[in-house]
Amino acid sequence: MADLMNSDVFLAFCTYATIVILKMMFMAPLTGYFRFTRKAFSNWEDTAMSKNPEARKKMLQTNPDVERVRRCHLNDLENIIPFVVIGLLYALTGPDLSTALLHFRVFVGSRFIHTASYVLALPQPSRGLSWVVGMITTFSMAYRVLTTALYL
Amino acid sequence: MADLMNSDVFLAFCTYATIVILKMMFMAPLTGYFRFTRKAFSNWEDTAMSKNPEARKKMLQTNPDVERVRRCHLNDLENIIPFVVIGLLYALTGPDLSTALLHFRVFVGSRFIHTASYVLALPQPSRGLSWVVGMITTFSMAYRVLTTALYL
Amino acid sequence: MADLMNSDVFLAFCTYATIVILKMMFMAPLTGYFRFTRKAFSNWEDTAMSKNPEARKKMLQTNPDVERVRRCHLNDLENIIPFVVIGLLYALTGPDLSTALLHFRVFVGSRFIHTASYVLALPQPSRGLSWVVGMITTFSMAYRVLTTALYL
Repeated sequence: MADLMNSDVFLAFCTYATIVILKMMFMAPLTGYFRFTRKAFSNWEDTAMSKNPEARKKMLQTNPDVERVRRCHLNDLENIIPFVVIGLLYALTGPDLSTALLHFRVFVGSRFIHTASYVLALPQPSRGLSWVVGMITTFSMAYRVLTTALYL
Repeated sequence: MADLMNSDVFLAFCTYATIVILKMMFMAPLTGYFRFTRKAFSNWEDTAMSKNPEARKKMLQTNPDVERVRRCHLNDLENIIPFVVIGLLYALTGPDLSTALLHFRVFVGSRFIHTASYVLALPQPSRGLSWVVGMITTFSMAYRVLTTALYL
Repeated sequence: MADLMNSDVFLAFCTYATIVILKMMFMAPLTGYFRFTRKAFSNWEDTAMSKNPEARKKMLQTNPDVERVRRCHLNDLENIIPFVVIGLLYALTGPDLSTALLHFRVFVGSRFIHTASYVLALPQPSRGLSWVVGMITTFSMAYRVLTTALYL
């Protein structure tokens, strides 16, 4: 156990993986914020702040801002979790510290830019580019895992 | 390899992570159950139990019960996977066994309560509270990971 | 660190986990392909290839082909991530190499068949069966984790 934690690459992985997972988790309160300010809920029991059944029914709506944050959250799940899984295996293949740090930093940076581009609806290709950069980083780590640890 | 499995904290992590992942996987057959009993499918090829094209078209509907279980499943993905990732790194930082068990038990308990609150549509704040408790548990573990293993 | 990578079971896990995660990531460009060929987008800023506001509004539509690939992607998240988490813990319990390879190969094969069945809309039960086979494989690994490493 202590062995893993003596490796700088593994410590760096722990740090960046935790940061990017926390970023992903932050999308949930952000969804909640938009749900409350836009009064747009999915569940009947979530509208109990109003006593008027008509008003409650109206709150069961979809709202473009809420849906935008939800799409961003789902995109995080689709990209950040592969990074964490492949990044963990990559860290175990013993890469150079500087190469590993480059991968981790580029990925985490790209996801922060992606979230900003998505939530603020910045013009393309800001969101598309940040997504592609994250994908390429993960592919590059997967390439090293497959060339170092291939056992079919 | 044997080293990790000699650590009680790591064994506890394996146990609770497996239990809560199995709980998450259980949402899939539950969705299937509601799809079949409510006759609400998303894919044309899933409606082949009927030979009548009109009846098949009607089965391509959304149903509130199915959507509720699907939202619960997605919420599980958004919360349980961060727990598993951060919990794994947390277990590797060598916390006290009793502190680690507390984190794992509170999180897993909160997610079972969350699922019951969601699927049975219990009045708020049962679902909201159980969700917040799970988030706080994960944040607490992330805090330890970042303070123990920080390498930027 | 080197210890883990000296285990054939762990190397096999790295290989199959990376392959199946790459397969999951491939769903994202596939969604993009269908979005562009079907002209069906979710975000206003994604429709900027047209200058005509009327044409752009029309592109903000849902398309059955896009939705099908997105459902397949979500199903991957719901099934492949549990496999990766439980498979990692399973690999650490020190199973026989041949048993482990059987689990990994059956799971990864079942998910490729699942994706083909879903995207090509093959008649049931091809998709249902491949999904069940993947679930059973993951359950079987979870059973070994819980019987080997139980610490409640």
